[in-house]
Amino acid sequence: MTELRLRMRLMRGEEIALGPGKVDLLEGIERTGSISAAGRELGMSYRRAWKLVETMNRCFANPLVETAKGGHSGGGANLTPEGRQALAAYREMESLAQDAVQANAQTLQDMLAPEPGANVV
Amino acid sequence: MTELRLRMRLMRGEEIALGPGKVDLLEGIERTGSISAAGRELGMSYRRAWKLVETMNRCFANPLVETAKGGHSGGGANLTPEGRQALAAYREMESLAQDAVQANAQTLQDMLAPEPGANVV
Repeated sequence: MTELRLRMRLMRGEEIALGPGKVDLLEGIERTGSISAAGRELGMSYRRAWKLVETMNRCFANPLVETAKGGHSGGGANLTPEGRQALAAYREMESLAQDAVQANAQTLQDMLAPEPGANVV
Repeated sequence: MTELRLRMRLMRGEEIALGPGKVDLLEGIERTGSISAAGRELGMSYRRAWKLVETMNRCFANPLVETAKGGHSGGGANLTPEGRQALAAYREMESLAQDAVQANAQTLQDMLAPEPGANVV
């Protein structure tokens, strides 16, 4: 199987303000209303999911994720308006980039050798 | 400093047929006529540069790099027509993708907090 993998990282100095993992997490938080549930779905530890949220909230002028009263363990979490905006802008970038490179990616994929063991049609 | 970093990897199964490091190496080989000189410029060991070339040549139906008689140590190296085509297609993809995401990237960068220690104008 051949494919073009495209990854985008929004950098603030040396920190990754937004990247594939963080965006997946935002999406999960929006859907589940919980940082830990979202992290679990992605195979992340609770600690890891929290660290990603803290990094995003620190890197952006306004937090992307807000937690309800009850702090880390209780209460649930939600995206702020900025969180929804950042998520949408990133997902749109992914699809704009994929569309833009599609023809060249196909050219390159057609230049690849068949994979060993692949069925030759 | 904020920026959007974009990385593309052309995958053939689990192997990276072409990615940022390999493309830089192709460019260096084209310019220097030598795998070891190109690798050196990129801070790669001779062994590492050769491994990347071997992977590219194996992944593509036609080799991207040809070595002159004399084998590994002598003789020099050059891009084949397919090597020049793959290099050009990849570089064009990069610039098409950057152009496509530019407006959204700017939106996201404008949402970031000022970096600690950065001069506020």
